[in-house]
Amino acid sequence: MDLDIPEEVRRIFAQAPFIAALGIHLESAGAGECSTVLDVQDRHLQQDGFVHAGVQATMADHTAGVAAGSLMPPGRIVLSTQLSLQLLRPAKGTRLRCRAKVLKAGRTLTVVESEVFCEGADGERLVSKLTGTMAVVDAAVARG
Amino acid sequence: MDLDIPEEVRRIFAQAPFIAALGIHLESAGAGECSTVLDVQDRHLQQDGFVHAGVQATMADHTAGVAAGSLMPPGRIVLSTQLSLQLLRPAKGTRLRCRAKVLKAGRTLTVVESEVFCEGADGERLVSKLTGTMAVVDAAVARG
Amino acid sequence: MDLDIPEEVRRIFAQAPFIAALGIHLESAGAGECSTVLDVQDRHLQQDGFVHAGVQATMADHTAGVAAGSLMPPGRIVLSTQLSLQLLRPAKGTRLRCRAKVLKAGRTLTVVESEVFCEGADGERLVSKLTGTMAVVDAAVARG
Amino acid sequence: MDLDIPEEVRRIFAQAPFIAALGIHLESAGAGECSTVLDVQDRHLQQDGFVHAGVQATMADHTAGVAAGSLMPPGRIVLSTQLSLQLLRPAKGTRLRCRAKVLKAGRTLTVVESEVFCEGADGERLVSKLTGTMAVVDAAVARG
Repeated sequence: MDLDIPEEVRRIFAQAPFIAALGIHLESAGAGECSTVLDVQDRHLQQDGFVHAGVQATMADHTAGVAAGSLMPPGRIVLSTQLSLQLLRPAKGTRLRCRAKVLKAGRTLTVVESEVFCEGADGERLVSKLTGTMAVVDAAVARG
Repeated sequence: MDLDIPEEVRRIFAQAPFIAALGIHLESAGAGECSTVLDVQDRHLQQDGFVHAGVQATMADHTAGVAAGSLMPPGRIVLSTQLSLQLLRPAKGTRLRCRAKVLKAGRTLTVVESEVFCEGADGERLVSKLTGTMAVVDAAVARG
Repeated sequence: MDLDIPEEVRRIFAQAPFIAALGIHLESAGAGECSTVLDVQDRHLQQDGFVHAGVQATMADHTAGVAAGSLMPPGRIVLSTQLSLQLLRPAKGTRLRCRAKVLKAGRTLTVVESEVFCEGADGERLVSKLTGTMAVVDAAVARG
Repeated sequence: MDLDIPEEVRRIFAQAPFIAALGIHLESAGAGECSTVLDVQDRHLQQDGFVHAGVQATMADHTAGVAAGSLMPPGRIVLSTQLSLQLLRPAKGTRLRCRAKVLKAGRTLTVVESEVFCEGADGERLVSKLTGTMAVVDAAVARG
């Protein structure tokens, strides 16, 4: 992992058990941006053989959180408060890639967009798009 | 599991590997309604010790899908096309319960609402609410 | 108008020119709740004779804002930051009624739900439902 | 108005009384794209002097509808079924411009994104962004 990656980005990735359990990996991160990948396995599917919407929501939300988190000063963290996910076509393939980008960074709210692409028989296609609102909160307060 | 549970409800639960992997269980299902539970484990958490938004999105979406699926005639299935999730407070607790109810059943689209409750130190509290739009599609066509 | 209606509720209604221009009227307001009505006229319609989605969004958002505003202490106002509107069926009728209710009041964000009903040939039917997130902000800061 | 503008685009604009009443004008339209403008007047404002969220929702939804409608074959129309609007900053200015673009055109659902810009003292700024889902329906059926 690149030495230039901000501390908060590392932390969001290294310390989120659900993301490790799913097998989502950090590909790259910059100021207000993040890219992640996931090798699709049977355990990620829903009942008709497509990648579960929940897997896509998790990946889109977490990648968005990293993009937002990359802009946080020390002591401030982001928490998702609202997610809107458009599922554009069934996701059938071997690999997902998610790219998130901050649309508007604010003092108390940051809005991020994530696009999820699926690599399948007919190349890489956009399968879902998320718009997420992240609350910027004091780390000590949030953790109680 | 109750003998009265419709075939499509059973199938959505029994054949979705991601739901089994997460440990989400069916509690009850009726016409246009469904309730599920999840015993929270460390692997469901995000980096600050709360249940990951993606876990809540998965549970809310899948329970909504079962509620919508319970109304499907043979040969028709539902696929999520749009999810809106409000995360109302950090989810910290030992058990999640989700209750979904169809708001409007249509010929091509069914709208469902799901509420996710978290059982913690101060009782059971509403932690998130989802509104989902499910497309009603021909099973044979959807699976290609 | 009832003497018990909070000052901020009155203000949101009396001083919003767009709401007056549309003809939306306050029916009732309580703590975290509000109800409004609109007599449908030709000027509210879209190209197929239905009430425009924008009219429904306006009514649902404003009524939600009043419900949230009713809980504000002096010097604090609410501003809409995110709206999700489900249009459940075409709105054809003579009168709309909107009922909004706060789902979760927070220190910086308040989440409200609004239901829009349309009175037509077959009685009053739910035509749309909104979930809105309102930011709680300092009045002096917001107005610059 | 340009002679190349598709019939359905003209119709959506010329026959929507609410859009005429608000003063929203068509600027340009192409295949899957549309741009509109609105000169802001006092009657478009909410109680704090900003352009009402409902005005922005109306403009974003209608412009999205035209972008989707531009791709419709004869006899098919679009109806909004779901709108998600992010209000990124208070809209204070003299003119709004909205640009909509189809994200995914489908046989039964078309997803469109609209961006609303406000021309004010500090130039043109993005004030809100909408994601809309439009149902593709038979014109004769929809109108009953």
